[in-house]
Formats: sequence, C-alpha cells, structure tokens
Amino acid sequence: MPGNTFGRVFRVTTWGESHGPAVGVVVDGCPAGLEISEEDIQVELDRRRPGQSAITTQRKEPDKVEILSGVFQGKTLGTPISLMVRNVDVISKSYEDIREVYRPGHADYTYEVKYEIRDYRGGGRASARETVGRVAAAAIAKKVLGLSGIKTIGYVKQIGEIVAEKVDFDEIERNPVRCPDKHKAKEMIELIEQVRREGDSIGGVVEVVSIGVPPGLGDPVFNKIDADLAAALMSIGGVRGVEIGMGFEVGRRRGSEVNDVMYMNDKGELRFKTNNAGGILGGITNGENIVVRIAIKPTSSIPKIQQTVDRFGRPVELVVKGRHDPCLCPRAVPIAEAMVNLVLVDHLLMSRVSRL
Amino acid sequence: MPGNTFGRVFRVTTWGESHGPAVGVVVDGCPAGLEISEEDIQVELDRRRPGQSAITTQRKEPDKVEILSGVFQGKTLGTPISLMVRNVDVISKSYEDIREVYRPGHADYTYEVKYEIRDYRGGGRASARETVGRVAAAAIAKKVLGLSGIKTIGYVKQIGEIVAEKVDFDEIERNPVRCPDKHKAKEMIELIEQVRREGDSIGGVVEVVSIGVPPGLGDPVFNKIDADLAAALMSIGGVRGVEIGMGFEVGRRRGSEVNDVMYMNDKGELRFKTNNAGGILGGITNGENIVVRIAIKPTSSIPKIQQTVDRFGRPVELVVKGRHDPCLCPRAVPIAEAMVNLVLVDHLLMSRVSRL
Amino acid sequence: MPGNTFGRVFRVTTWGESHGPAVGVVVDGCPAGLEISEEDIQVELDRRRPGQSAITTQRKEPDKVEILSGVFQGKTLGTPISLMVRNVDVISKSYEDIREVYRPGHADYTYEVKYEIRDYRGGGRASARETVGRVAAAAIAKKVLGLSGIKTIGYVKQIGEIVAEKVDFDEIERNPVRCPDKHKAKEMIELIEQVRREGDSIGGVVEVVSIGVPPGLGDPVFNKIDADLAAALMSIGGVRGVEIGMGFEVGRRRGSEVNDVMYMNDKGELRFKTNNAGGILGGITNGENIVVRIAIKPTSSIPKIQQTVDRFGRPVELVVKGRHDPCLCPRAVPIAEAMVNLVLVDHLLMSRVSRL
Amino acid sequence: MPGNTFGRVFRVTTWGESHGPAVGVVVDGCPAGLEISEEDIQVELDRRRPGQSAITTQRKEPDKVEILSGVFQGKTLGTPISLMVRNVDVISKSYEDIREVYRPGHADYTYEVKYEIRDYRGGGRASARETVGRVAAAAIAKKVLGLSGIKTIGYVKQIGEIVAEKVDFDEIERNPVRCPDKHKAKEMIELIEQVRREGDSIGGVVEVVSIGVPPGLGDPVFNKIDADLAAALMSIGGVRGVEIGMGFEVGRRRGSEVNDVMYMNDKGELRFKTNNAGGILGGITNGENIVVRIAIKPTSSIPKIQQTVDRFGRPVELVVKGRHDPCLCPRAVPIAEAMVNLVLVDHLLMSRVSRL
Repeated sequence: MPGNTFGRVFRVTTWGESHGPAVGVVVDGCPAGLEISEEDIQVELDRRRPGQSAITTQRKEPDKVEILSGVFQGKTLGTPISLMVRNVDVISKSYEDIREVYRPGHADYTYEVKYEIRDYRGGGRASARETVGRVAAAAIAKKVLGLSGIKTIGYVKQIGEIVAEKVDFDEIERNPVRCPDKHKAKEMIELIEQVRREGDSIGGVVEVVSIGVPPGLGDPVFNKIDADLAAALMSIGGVRGVEIGMGFEVGRRRGSEVNDVMYMNDKGELRFKTNNAGGILGGITNGENIVVRIAIKPTSSIPKIQQTVDRFGRPVELVVKGRHDPCLCPRAVPIAEAMVNLVLVDHLLMSRVSRL
Repeated sequence: MPGNTFGRVFRVTTWGESHGPAVGVVVDGCPAGLEISEEDIQVELDRRRPGQSAITTQRKEPDKVEILSGVFQGKTLGTPISLMVRNVDVISKSYEDIREVYRPGHADYTYEVKYEIRDYRGGGRASARETVGRVAAAAIAKKVLGLSGIKTIGYVKQIGEIVAEKVDFDEIERNPVRCPDKHKAKEMIELIEQVRREGDSIGGVVEVVSIGVPPGLGDPVFNKIDADLAAALMSIGGVRGVEIGMGFEVGRRRGSEVNDVMYMNDKGELRFKTNNAGGILGGITNGENIVVRIAIKPTSSIPKIQQTVDRFGRPVELVVKGRHDPCLCPRAVPIAEAMVNLVLVDHLLMSRVSRL
Repeated sequence: MPGNTFGRVFRVTTWGESHGPAVGVVVDGCPAGLEISEEDIQVELDRRRPGQSAITTQRKEPDKVEILSGVFQGKTLGTPISLMVRNVDVISKSYEDIREVYRPGHADYTYEVKYEIRDYRGGGRASARETVGRVAAAAIAKKVLGLSGIKTIGYVKQIGEIVAEKVDFDEIERNPVRCPDKHKAKEMIELIEQVRREGDSIGGVVEVVSIGVPPGLGDPVFNKIDADLAAALMSIGGVRGVEIGMGFEVGRRRGSEVNDVMYMNDKGELRFKTNNAGGILGGITNGENIVVRIAIKPTSSIPKIQQTVDRFGRPVELVVKGRHDPCLCPRAVPIAEAMVNLVLVDHLLMSRVSRL
Repeated sequence: MPGNTFGRVFRVTTWGESHGPAVGVVVDGCPAGLEISEEDIQVELDRRRPGQSAITTQRKEPDKVEILSGVFQGKTLGTPISLMVRNVDVISKSYEDIREVYRPGHADYTYEVKYEIRDYRGGGRASARETVGRVAAAAIAKKVLGLSGIKTIGYVKQIGEIVAEKVDFDEIERNPVRCPDKHKAKEMIELIEQVRREGDSIGGVVEVVSIGVPPGLGDPVFNKIDADLAAALMSIGGVRGVEIGMGFEVGRRRGSEVNDVMYMNDKGELRFKTNNAGGILGGITNGENIVVRIAIKPTSSIPKIQQTVDRFGRPVELVVKGRHDPCLCPRAVPIAEAMVNLVLVDHLLMSRVSRL
C-alpha cells in the first residue's frame, strides 16, 4: 500500500537507493517447484545493466545477484524469494555539489516536498537503479510464463522522428539501440550520437509484444489487464504515455475501422483478423498478441547549462555531471518487458481462481 | 484483489450488471464528518446519464441514487457508504437474438472464455452502466478534495481529426460534445451527426485537468500518482491510451525542450515556467496542474452490417440494435473526471502518513 | 484497508448501520458458475435472525435478502455479488434518550472519540446487525466449500459454568441454545432464564468444527490459517478470546502430551491419532478437523441500573431499554460458522496458486 | 496476499529460511524523518536471540543486522527499509537424517503437502528464526510509537501450573524466564529445568501490555484492533490461543461483572474504573492499557523417543536432535511485543485518515 509492492498474488516489493549499500526485491507468491538459478536472473540483469555500449551510461556495475531465500536445491519453495544486488561503483562525491539543487526534470524537489528528506546521491530511490529489483523479480516471472508458452519481447520503436518500419525480433539484440529494424537502428544510433555531442538528450517509444497469451486473463473492472499494464508501465521512470493496440490512433478512426473481425481458424480456434485491440477486449485477453507502447522522455540529466533553483529558491545555473544515457530507450526495453511479465504472471495465477 | 475495488485508503467497490436489478458502489474509508447528500451525488450522476442530447444514447434512466449507509444527519460516519441506483429502463428483449453472438469490439467473447458464463443483456458487467458506481463514489471524493481546494475538470479535446484549440472551461457544459472550444465544438457535433448517418461511430481524446493539487502527492515506486492515474483511466471501457503532460510528444523531443524550468514566484513558492511534466515528477505532484489525456475508441456497437461469429464459431452477419452513442467521448468526460478524483483523494489521504 | 473488507481472493465488504435504511454486503471473487439462489442465502439469515425464541431478542426483522448483481439465471457470473437486506423493524425513538450517553460495555465512546460522530441508534455500525452481511456472504462461501466436501458446524459449548459434555450434531438445532448436549442444553436454558429475571446477562463459549478440510490450506507466515481464523472470529462483536485445538490448555501441558502422533491409515492417508493441534500445523491444515473456540462476553445491554457518563463526562444512571438477548451465544453460532467459512473459502481458492 | 506481508500502511514483509543464506525484512511505509540506527534494531534482536541462558537453545547466532536501504544520514527516507541478518551458526548436517521424517508437532508434513517441496533443515521457513525479521521491523515501529508515548511490555505470565501473581515490570529482564514475579520466576525456572531433565518440554502463557495508547485506534469491522492483534499473535509459531482483557473468563461471568464503569477523572479525561475490556471496545481503543495474553504450546522438538512416520507413511521412532528450548515462552516475549507493536503502529498511522 505505501507504494513499493506490485501485484496481487505474485507480489514484488523492491527496495534500495541508487547509492545505498544495495538494491533488491522480495518476491512473494511465486509458486513452489519452479526451477530457478542465479544465472537465470543474472542474464536479465545483464541486459538492463549500464555501461554496455557507447550510447549508454558508463557507470560500471557488475550487478551480481544473490538469492537469499525461497530457493532450495534449485527449486522455489513457495516462500518469499529475496534477491539482492550490492551497489559497487558508487561515486557519491559527484553529487555533493548538487545536494541542495533541484535538477530540472528530476524528482529532487517532489521527494523533498513529500518526505522533507531525500537521498540526493544519484537520485536515491528515484534512480533507474531501482529497476534492478523489478528486472530480477521478472526473471522469475518469465520462467513461470515460459512454462505456459508465454513470451514477451520489447524493442525500440521510435527515437525522435525516426520510426522502425520492420519488426525483426532477431535483430533487436544485435544493435545497441535495440531496434528491430536494422536500417532504422543505424539512423537512430547516429541521432543519439549527434544529440550527445550537442550536450542534449532525446526521447522515444518502446513497444512490447507478448506472444502465446491465452484468452481469458484479466480481472474487470479495475484490474483489467490493460489497466494493470498501464500502471505497471507508467511506473517506470521517464514514461509519459502508454497505449494498447491501436492506441491514440483510435481517436481519429471510425468504429468500422477499429473493430477486429472474428473468425474460426482451421484448428477450431476463435481468432481475430486484425489486432487493433492489442490482444485485450473488456480488460481480458482475447488470444491475440498483447501489444503495448510507451513514450519515454529524453534523459533529464543533460550536460547543457540549465536554469533551476536550489532548496531555498535561489536561482542556480546547473551543469549536471555524472554518467547519463543520452537516450533512455535502449535500456528501458528490458525494464518494460519486466513490467509486462509481472502483470502477466499475476493475471495468469489469478485466472486459476475465476471459475469453479 | 478480484478486480472490482479501487484505491488504498479511500476504497471503492462497484457492482452491478447493465440489465440486472441495480448497480452501485460501496465507499470504504471516506473520512468521518463530511457533509454529503443524495443531491451532491445526483448532480454528478445526471452529468453521466444517457439520453441527454441528440448525440448520446436514447436509453432513459432516471439514475436516482439512494444512500443506504454511512451517512447520518447529513454527515459521513467514517463507516462504509453504500450507494445504489436501480436499473429501470431495461429492454432485455433486444439482446435475445445476440445471446450467442460475439459482437465485434465487445467483451462478449473474452468474458465467456474467462468465466464460461456471461450476462449477455446489454454487455452485463462490461457495460458503461458499471460507471454509475464510479461516478457516484467520485462525487464524494470530489467533496473531500474541494475542502483542500482541488478541482478537476474534463473536456473533449479531439473528435476524429478535429482538435480543440482553445480551452474555455465555461464553454464545456454549454455544448453537448463537452468541448471547451466553442467553434470546434460545432464542427465536432457536425462530424458526429454525419458519422451517425453513415451508421458508423467515431473516436476521440478527452483531457482532464486538476487544479489546486498540492505538491507532494504520490507514492513511488509502484503507486506513483501517474501510474495510478494510468490504471484508473485505462480501466474505463474504450480507453486505449493514457498520457501525462506532454505525453507521446516526448518521444520526438530533446531534453532541453522537455525539462520544465523552476523558479521562485512572488509568494516564495517554487513553481515551473512550463508544465510539460503535467504536474508530476518522479510520480509525485509538483504543484502544477495535473494534465492527462485519454484516447477513446469509436463505439463498438454500430448499425452497419458487421461480420463476426457466434459461440460455436459459426460466421454471423450482425446488425447491432439497441441504443448507442455514435461517440463515447462526451459521456466519458464525467467518468474520466471521476477516476482522476478517486486517485487524487486516495493520494491526498495517503499523504497524511508519509511523514512523522 | 479501512476495515470493512475481509479476505484476499474471496473478498467480502459489509456495509450498513443498525437503524439505517439497509445492511448488506458485496462479495467479490466468487468463482463463476456456482448455483446460488436467494433461498440459499435466506436459510442462513433465518438462522441468525433475532426473535426466534424466548431467550433471544424480540426485534422482529424479516431479513429478506435481495440479490442485486453477480447472479444470472441461477449461477454466479464471476462478477461482484451484491446482497441487501432492508432494515424494517426500526424503533429509533427508544435510543433518543441515550443519544449523549455512553452505554457501558458498548462502543459508543470509542466510536465517538475515533470519528467525532456516531449513529447512536441501536449501536449504528457496531450493532450485531452488521453481521447480516457476513452471514449472507458466507452462505455463498458455504456452497463453494460444499463442492469440496467441507462442512462447518458451530454450537454452544459453555454458558456460565455449564459445559457441554457430549457433542451430538443432530441435537444442536433442536434446542434454542444451540447446544449439542441435550441435558446440558436444558441447564443452560434455565440459567439464561434466571439471569434474565435478575436483569443481567451471561457469557459463554462457542465451538466451531470444520470437517472434510483437505490438508495444505494456509499461507505462512502472516496468513497462517489459524491467524486468519483468529482475526475473523475476534472481529465478531463480544468475542474476547480465540483458541485452536487444545487452546489455552497447552500452557499447562508437556510436549509429550501435546504432540499428535501420526500414522498411515488403511487407505494410505497420513492421519493423526489425536487432534490437539485442532487441524492446523505451522499455519497449514493437516487434514484433521479444524476446531476453534471463542469466548463471548455477556450482553453489555442489561436492564439493571448501571453507572456511566454522558459525552460531557457527567455521571449518569442508566437503564438500557430496547430488546436484547440475555446471552449472545446461541445467535453467535451462525455468525462464527460464517466467519470460519469465509476464511476457509479464501484459503481454498488461494491454494490453487501455491504450486506450479 | 500470499502471506508474508503484515500491515496496511506500515507494511512488513519477512523472508528467509532457518538454514538459508540469511533472513530479513522489508518495511514499507515507515514515515520519513525517523531517527533510526542499526543499534536501535540490534538491541531488540539481542533480546530474541537464542543462547542467552541455560534454559534457552544453545544455537549461537550473532544476529548482526544490516540496514540496506531506506535510511540516510541516520533518518528514514520514507522509502522501503531493508534489513538483513546473515545466518551464521548453521549446522545443517544434523537435519540430514530427518530429511524424510515428519517430526511430531512440526509443520514438516503440512509444508510438504502444500508445496510438494520443503527445506527440511531446521524447519526452513517454519522456524522461529523467521521472527528475526519481525523483531527487526518492530524495532522501528517501537521508535515511531515511542514518539507518541506508547510503550509495550511483555512477560511470562504462566509456565505449566505456575502463574505469576505480581507484575513488577522492573523484574522481567532480571530473570531468564522473563517473569515479572520474582518468586514465581524461581519456581518457573526450576520447573523448566526439571522438564528438560525428563527429556520433555512445557507450555505457558505470555501477557503483553501496551501503555499510553490513545483512545480511537482501530478500524471496524474486520480490522478491529483486537482482530488484528489476534491475527498478529496467532501467526507466531506455537501460539494456540489469544485473549483480550478478561479473555475466556468472560464465558463464566455476568454482564454486571464484565462491563467497565466509566467516569471522568480530575484532568477531565474519560476513563474506566476497571479494565476487563483490555483497552478495546467495539474494536477501538478506549484509552486504557491494552492487555492481551497468548497460550504457547510446549516445544514440539523433545529429546524423548516419539512415534511418527516418514514421507512414505512408514512408522519411524524419532529422537529429535538439534538444540531446542524446553520452553518457548521466555523467547516468545520479545516476539509477542513485536507483533503488538506492528499492529499498533499500523493503526496509529491509519488513525490519521479516519477524520477530515
């Protein structure tokens, strides 16, 4: 209830500040009997880790995960799984001079007005480092979902004005911008490099697709699966919009264009000829792929000189130091996938109690 | 947890099917001592009621609310407030012939695959009629918020390709399309009429603004106020996208354009020169207006002949009868306001426990 | 969270004041497809209804339940089930003279200090009338449990110093005191009559047994099934103690006396030779009967003159009028059964998500 | 929801197995600005630590707590506080020979039937070691409560047939049995020593008193403060009964004996001449001391030969090795205090939202 727990039966509680001793997560409600290892989790953490390429932050965190509970002889016990990652590459000193300054676009001011205290080092709890816990927890969710044939894939759809036109899943991890369109990937990288040289940053759009989702997941009316996805994705730092299927485009269209036509396929399954609904009708999955998109703002920390104030309201000219991605999108991909998987696993388990 | 309850300390549980005996809501957690009357609630219900103009559905429901508990001598007791509205104008017969047909764009199929049973009359629980409970509950929330000077105003921003350019709050309730731009309102109405004549429907965008919100509301990381708003709004039927502040536009912009510059005003308050953030930073309000937008799909029920299947997978040619709005947006306005107010009141109360 | 909801996946929200328009409950999370009728619920309400015999209160409430939602063609839809009972025999006038008086043993003072307002008529929300909602909801739970062969039976174990020695389930509903021991029942009734003549009231103990509970229900560590039972039962007005199995007697015993010995029976099932544990080990059911007991205080409202104060602290000599049972125990039986069934159904459903 | 989280706004999630790498807790919802140090927490952990005297288990755990998040420069941030204690003195080998045996009185069988897997070393999650997290979290709760003048004191009231007659708070920590009656303490210790020599164990009763609790805490109807206390205390391993105030004794008494008489004291405060209600009326505190008692069973692990079965149902003669207290009561005292404090802090914070 105070905000750091997500999910209803597969419950994830993250903790940790960017420059505190560690970050981590407790997963309560993972079914017993799941095979899981530190390697399974490490793989996902490695995907979200900074310092992976020239276009991401140069903070070097090994992000080595430790399973502290809930797993015995390689299998989950049904008890809480506690996962921890020590913070290693912590350079707090660079934050000393902004201790009393509110960085533009950051949560410095709002945390202070809310709590009257904040850990100013690296954004504290508002840091993207908090997502280590999310990604670690979702690595477990992913294994549960995999047993039901559900697979979630995210990628960068747009950077600035450049929009991917092709979606080739195999391409995604081959380029540092995680774009499924090889040619657009190249353009995106160039744009990011250019923006960086200008001392600025750039926004974009990440799309996430879930394949193999059975129909019937979702709990109307307030836990519609799209409502839960919206919350899950909007809770990621820097996300300013979420859309499902056709998304904002529906505002310009007619009903006859938007309604997906149903038919029965050769296997006797009810399917839809189009997927404008993004796999969800009335808050419940319809058996088609779930398709969601999120708008991600340009990194707030930019090397350019910016005007702001300090905690006494005095005007300050700020040059943000530290190590920051000029574009958040590539690293947002595994985080967005993680949040989608956390929603799906929760609904997959909840679906077991909806009928006699 | 099973989906029909919203909020953490101001908790709202809606119930009811479109063509069942009644719809209603229980509000648990409203602070004691609030002056409230059936009239306060009726006013809001009247705003969402169908049959108000030529461009909305002709179903005539008096939607007379009854307070069944939690209020004594005109004040809330701190105990659950139960509100009920009887369903009166129920013509179930028109639904008999689609008892076994899955209407395109509706939740017929997904409800059936999830529950293996559904109330096919008027969409059952998936009907917009469910929002009676939301609006009634939010009328109470609105009174609580009013005591803190918080006011929420919604309006239609866009219908099809027509976008409001001016925002004149006084104009909103003067036209049936609830558009704050008098001239665009006229165009929108014409478009809706034309679409109706074509036997089709049209989508749009609703914008909601909350004024007077104090800084410091929001519970990172999963109950960021924007995450809760996203869930709240996406849970409304027909909503396919939610955006905050600059929204999806951030995907095209640079950090130096998106960051809002802070300054101290004459009263010694910290304020922002622009409001690209839509009043929220790091999931916590910053004292500026909250600004959210939702994309609403065109009504799924259209008079045009549509292809679909029945529950046995047999192809069916469907002409949806019944009484349906050609555009959901005008009636979505009070519902969207309601959901925003439910989020705000919950966070306003929760903010009382965030500090010693 | 604000206190009027019980359960995790089978969630029950009760509402209503004793002398308000109605009392009721919303059940969210009942699985779809359950056959249920108003008669199923009415039977249970009739068992808790006052005015059934000379030893219970003479308030005459028909307590006619109305199903307002969630049931269609005799089956649950998986959507919220709203149940309402109108308050009919409301004589509020008799409470006018105690409007500002704090009745001894009642919640008058504590409600007022907490909420600064209270419905003084008949105890308002603190009335036993609130349990109408619990019993109605539990009638549904009982049907779900019945499908799994689980049956819960309560009875009066003790009134004053008189303790039932035999437990004959068939006897329970044959005597107005709901005692399973025919001879002790007679003594108990005599005691209650005598106490009533003295203008006093008397306490007792109710025991509840659940039969056919499968092993494996319960969610350690905070939702151990005995922890949930303790909360459920202690939440009933007038209950001052809860014990499981051997209960407080364990405080006087040695481990070699308390541990139940396991064995394998003829059917190859693991069973226990004794049931000191009351069917629960480590918070999880072990396949033996669940056995719980609750201590119920004597009715607080007694005709005898009592000393108390009014809301200004002035001393008052009080003679409580109105219609009150001299012993709460007989009517507490169906309420205690209800709470046990609400716990069991919640854990039965939750057990579906504990393993892969 | 899956059982390892306690509280509504002050939320505590414990994790860890007895012989896993560590045990710990995440506290979400502690108000920002509280001064807290590892020493504050260590003091409480030291009180629950085993190996403190001849009458408790000889397992030697330093139980050194580490604060991993949520505290900055000695104050809480309002973000989750993660606390961890490494398991050091882990001798798993002694459990190898009971890997497939169900120990009498333990949760071995029930965990296995529920999860189909269990960590058999030292009871795994069902170990008393799990309470490290509870006590650590409650050390923080205690500091919050202290700021409001609330203090909770527990002690051993009864061991076997020996019952403390005097309550001298200063005496409690002076004797290893934590009895507030010096003379009875001596008798209790002798009894425990005798029971140990006989290869057996003994049960008892622990009483907990909370002083300085303001009137008005508690959320009817399901989160009555006594209902929450009952759940909290029953969730402690080995507890078989919970009673408030006069407890089970009410079953033998008349209303005129049980009702507490109110009066106004010299300071103009409403008070009660007796405290049979244990400080709670209608689920809300009345300003008197909260008084609760719990029945604790004799330690299940006893050196005596016991009959049981293994997981294949084969009969086994068992002599439990390992290091076990012959009486759980002395070490249960700080754990019971912890649970009471967790309930109190949650209700203290919730009371901030009950009125306008």
